[in-house]
Amino acid sequence: MVTVSKDHPRYNSLILRDKLVDGCKKGITNFHGLIAHGRGEAFDYLIGESSTTNALAATEVASAYMLTAQRPILSVNGNVAALVPAELVELSEMIGAPLEINLYHRSRQRIEKIEQHLRDFGARRILTGRDYVRLPEIASERAKVDERGILLSDVVFVPLEDGDRSEALKKSGKTVLAVDLNPLSRTALAASVTVVDELTRTMGNVIEFTKRMQNAEDKEVLEVLKSKFDNVQNLKTSYSIILSRLQNLSESDGPLNIT
Amino acid sequence: MVTVSKDHPRYNSLILRDKLVDGCKKGITNFHGLIAHGRGEAFDYLIGESSTTNALAATEVASAYMLTAQRPILSVNGNVAALVPAELVELSEMIGAPLEINLYHRSRQRIEKIEQHLRDFGARRILTGRDYVRLPEIASERAKVDERGILLSDVVFVPLEDGDRSEALKKSGKTVLAVDLNPLSRTALAASVTVVDELTRTMGNVIEFTKRMQNAEDKEVLEVLKSKFDNVQNLKTSYSIILSRLQNLSESDGPLNIT
Repeated sequence: MVTVSKDHPRYNSLILRDKLVDGCKKGITNFHGLIAHGRGEAFDYLIGESSTTNALAATEVASAYMLTAQRPILSVNGNVAALVPAELVELSEMIGAPLEINLYHRSRQRIEKIEQHLRDFGARRILTGRDYVRLPEIASERAKVDERGILLSDVVFVPLEDGDRSEALKKSGKTVLAVDLNPLSRTALAASVTVVDELTRTMGNVIEFTKRMQNAEDKEVLEVLKSKFDNVQNLKTSYSIILSRLQNLSESDGPLNIT
Repeated sequence: MVTVSKDHPRYNSLILRDKLVDGCKKGITNFHGLIAHGRGEAFDYLIGESSTTNALAATEVASAYMLTAQRPILSVNGNVAALVPAELVELSEMIGAPLEINLYHRSRQRIEKIEQHLRDFGARRILTGRDYVRLPEIASERAKVDERGILLSDVVFVPLEDGDRSEALKKSGKTVLAVDLNPLSRTALAASVTVVDELTRTMGNVIEFTKRMQNAEDKEVLEVLKSKFDNVQNLKTSYSIILSRLQNLSESDGPLNIT
């Protein structure tokens, strides 16, 4: 473990890496999760490593969907469990949604470790796909969803999800709320609402928005938020943000490096 | 191990990930290498996950440099060894260049494992920095180069190299041929020729170009290729490719189609 000063320009980024490497050592995260995280890091750098106004708007809409859902559910994989366990539990309690463990690289052992990890953070309602059914349209292990969980849900919050699953969830008629730093990914394109932002920042924002909107007098505002949102426009704005940042970077003088 | 269908839209990308994860399990690649690979993936997305005309032109020039070098050498790190061992051996034999193992996170054990791995793929000339000297200008372990290898070389092929080393190699007067998906990296800026492309695609192209040019009647053409090349222009074109791709996406009408 390397001690990192809070003044380090990439402090937050290094802390996240440590959490994931730690997750790897515990058997919660797997190697593929590290690669996926690296990809996200590069996009985060291009976005500017902060929540854009555009991302905040999408996050607000995602919160509105979760608050108005009949049966919301929060999907958890190895990276998500390593990065935001406490936030997941808080959101789960706030909106009355169970956590469903869904792994790209599925194994009984990893599911059990993640389940215990979430329980350590106070999770009470966890589904593990012990009684699972398969979503049509995907052939792999990723087709599995819990028959008491995602199968019955109307709104699924899927942070850091893979493209196959996101597309299958969308095709099965669910509202898919994704968190993905890559606005070009298949998940980003398939989702109903794509929050193009880093997960720990997003979870903080989701919890804040949900708390505020939960107490709002006029529930009508949630429906307006949902109906006004256009995910294609949201993604196009994300491309523009990266575009203008790259334009600035390529025109700047000093040495450039993604560390 | 997940079986991936060849029809999967991200088949190639997933195969590369498997190779690196496999490298990690064998002790060839390390955690940081996985995260670095993920960062490369992000740029490959932006480029379009194929070799651009611009990248092919740079690859051709890199091949010309290797074919006309007095003492060419191929630098190998953990990711490179995991991704393209067979291609490295083929190129090494074709141009009579040894392989030199140079690790960012250097350890005797990893060097030995990579050496054995390369031998398994038929490598005959491997340098491991057992007799090393230090390049000036870097303080860390990365300063080490083999005194029979990189130290004496005139042309160094350094795929996926870090910025410090690339800069030090360039300052020591060598022709540095880099492969880096991030056209903004310090390696990309420091190199004599930067191939902005994914490594497995690049190695296939390098081998094809080298074979073709090796048999060319007129060796003069290689000198023309070298003298006409402008790496600053090459990098600017790489920025433009990403920028125009993002611009098209951000301005497109109707649903987005990335591929």
